[in-house]
Amino acid sequence: MADALEPIVGEDALPGVPDFDTYPIEHWPVAAGVRDGGVDIAWDDGAHCLFHPLTLRENAPDPATTHPVTREQALMLTDIPADLAAVSAEVAANGAVSVRWSTGEESRFHPGWLRAHGPGLDDRGDDMPARVLWDSGFANALPRIDGGRLADDPDELMRWVAALHVHGVAIVEGLGSGHDVIERVPGLLGPLRDSNFGRIFDVVTKTDADSNAYTAMALPLHVDLATREYMPGLQFLHCLQNDADGGDSVVADGFTIAEALRREAPDLFEAISTVPLTAATKAVGTDHRWSSPMIRVDGNGDLVEVRWNPWLRAPLRAPFEVADKVYQALRRLFDMGEQDRFRVVTRLKPGDMLCFDNRRVLHGRTGFDPASGNRALRGCYVDREELHSRLRILARQRRAHPAP
Amino acid sequence: MADALEPIVGEDALPGVPDFDTYPIEHWPVAAGVRDGGVDIAWDDGAHCLFHPLTLRENAPDPATTHPVTREQALMLTDIPADLAAVSAEVAANGAVSVRWSTGEESRFHPGWLRAHGPGLDDRGDDMPARVLWDSGFANALPRIDGGRLADDPDELMRWVAALHVHGVAIVEGLGSGHDVIERVPGLLGPLRDSNFGRIFDVVTKTDADSNAYTAMALPLHVDLATREYMPGLQFLHCLQNDADGGDSVVADGFTIAEALRREAPDLFEAISTVPLTAATKAVGTDHRWSSPMIRVDGNGDLVEVRWNPWLRAPLRAPFEVADKVYQALRRLFDMGEQDRFRVVTRLKPGDMLCFDNRRVLHGRTGFDPASGNRALRGCYVDREELHSRLRILARQRRAHPAP
Repeated sequence: MADALEPIVGEDALPGVPDFDTYPIEHWPVAAGVRDGGVDIAWDDGAHCLFHPLTLRENAPDPATTHPVTREQALMLTDIPADLAAVSAEVAANGAVSVRWSTGEESRFHPGWLRAHGPGLDDRGDDMPARVLWDSGFANALPRIDGGRLADDPDELMRWVAALHVHGVAIVEGLGSGHDVIERVPGLLGPLRDSNFGRIFDVVTKTDADSNAYTAMALPLHVDLATREYMPGLQFLHCLQNDADGGDSVVADGFTIAEALRREAPDLFEAISTVPLTAATKAVGTDHRWSSPMIRVDGNGDLVEVRWNPWLRAPLRAPFEVADKVYQALRRLFDMGEQDRFRVVTRLKPGDMLCFDNRRVLHGRTGFDPASGNRALRGCYVDREELHSRLRILARQRRAHPAP
Repeated sequence: MADALEPIVGEDALPGVPDFDTYPIEHWPVAAGVRDGGVDIAWDDGAHCLFHPLTLRENAPDPATTHPVTREQALMLTDIPADLAAVSAEVAANGAVSVRWSTGEESRFHPGWLRAHGPGLDDRGDDMPARVLWDSGFANALPRIDGGRLADDPDELMRWVAALHVHGVAIVEGLGSGHDVIERVPGLLGPLRDSNFGRIFDVVTKTDADSNAYTAMALPLHVDLATREYMPGLQFLHCLQNDADGGDSVVADGFTIAEALRREAPDLFEAISTVPLTAATKAVGTDHRWSSPMIRVDGNGDLVEVRWNPWLRAPLRAPFEVADKVYQALRRLFDMGEQDRFRVVTRLKPGDMLCFDNRRVLHGRTGFDPASGNRALRGCYVDREELHSRLRILARQRRAHPAP
């Protein structure tokens, strides 16, 4: 972006902002002053906000506070006097707010930035659209993305990125069978996440299988690497060949199933979202283990992730009654995972890439007969936070250059 | 390991185990029976344990339950009858426990495995030694590892791995200046963790710095990538050149500082371990953000990580009083980080690699004069769970082949 290296404090112009975003001015400050030790700003729509003086002082856009190239904080909190106070604040003719400090210094702030960060005002927040849960009816609406346009068309890229966040699943089509596709396409989101299965893994049958995935067995719904503290956020499976009998792909929205359990059996939801279960790698050379409730909710009760792990559960060591409740919940969930109401079955064509949020969307396959043909997928992971970063950057670019 | 492909159920021999570990037999079962729906086992030292029948059923070592090659569960919970019960249990002549199921099937269990997993018995657990916190006095005891022996000497490898877990810091010496060292040595622990700074990053001054790290500024103590949900667990900095004036390395045990805060100012510890702060990447092309208390504790109050982030803090949006408490805590912590009592200052020589737990140990550097000489480090990340896996595998190998 060209504006990245422009001076962030002009002379008569409005001051810059302490990051690389744009802050369109939708409201103007009409008055500013010092109140209760904070900086109080009144807005033209009647809104008020009270900034802590340190929030303003350490985010002032001048180059001694905000590094002009990195835009990171150059003034450390410990270099600000402990008794710093705002002495006065006023709205300048150009609409900026200027604050005079007890040190004699002055800082000036951009009205759009102030509005976006004022405590108690509407937070523009994360630019993250809301998630939309789905069930088997989604089979006809699976987001299908044109692989040929992905690299050059920001709108198609945005469709893909948004689908992966909102629905947690998308199929990119028409990618051919190049062996670099599995690096190139997920790499549009961010760096690949390596694991002991390799940066890229080939899902084919192996005689020395170190995972059920590398057999011809049917794979019940699951997430990958539930044995990790941080399960890979996104999984990509690029279909190179799929002409064996069987081997259809199955996906289900783990959040939909979790919400159904919360509705239909609240006591089981309570157990499975609070009792830690241990997932353990069963392998010769690695021993990853992590203990966590299978369904993780945040402080608001919102779903964070579903660690759906049918065949890597370490022996349960809970007291008998707790174990009994957990087994009831597990059986109920795994049963739900086999119910048609939740499942979308789809058959990948060569050149398709199945992409999904591995911390939300469960995946599996029907068994296949390796004597009847070949089934070959290449897979990789990218973390969920790379998706979020890409989504924010695409949104930032749209704000900076709105469509005409 | 040769035993990986041996049959896991013998004939007269003791049954196998449903994983790749070894379970030395230190106690024998003396009686087994069915009680309250569970399988009760009495041991030769007077201990008792009550297994949930499903814990035994789904971890039976027979090949239809446990896949003989992957040792993952091959029998899914949903394929076990919902009304499965243990009908009888007894101790066989060879010391195994056999359980007869309501389906008519029978399962046999290895006494060492039963003892290691019996609910309420001492859990051998994770084989993780306890962490040891340190302060400035640790300067003379920094673990120094012989880089020449690391690849071939399991004892030196174990010293390194254990130091990284127990103290969270070690210096590997004598590695020379090969450009592949930064992949080869951390790669002994597990796969490298990529980021937008690259799989390998060069810490040198850059004119278009996208981080304060790439300037000649002094860097106050910090952790890397506090903007991520999952901060990289281990960081490695391989010194190629260090002949500029200044540029000494500084490390401090963030857990020691956090415990000091908990002791010296419990109200500030409470605020900083509960109020979420947002760390935000300030960059043109990436926008990673994560909100979390700066000090994270688990349900037991034990420290999990310290997200010590002086210059990537997004503007604080908390209500005034909360913001005030948080700023007091931040200032107190950052002040403590500058106190000699916590800091270890060391100067890296070419060929040294500074290795530390990035979620615990803070690192920084003194400023340097780029006109006076060169300072060049190459860095990378590996996740903490790779270290844990390596530590468990080394411990497993020692159990399987104890030193004579």
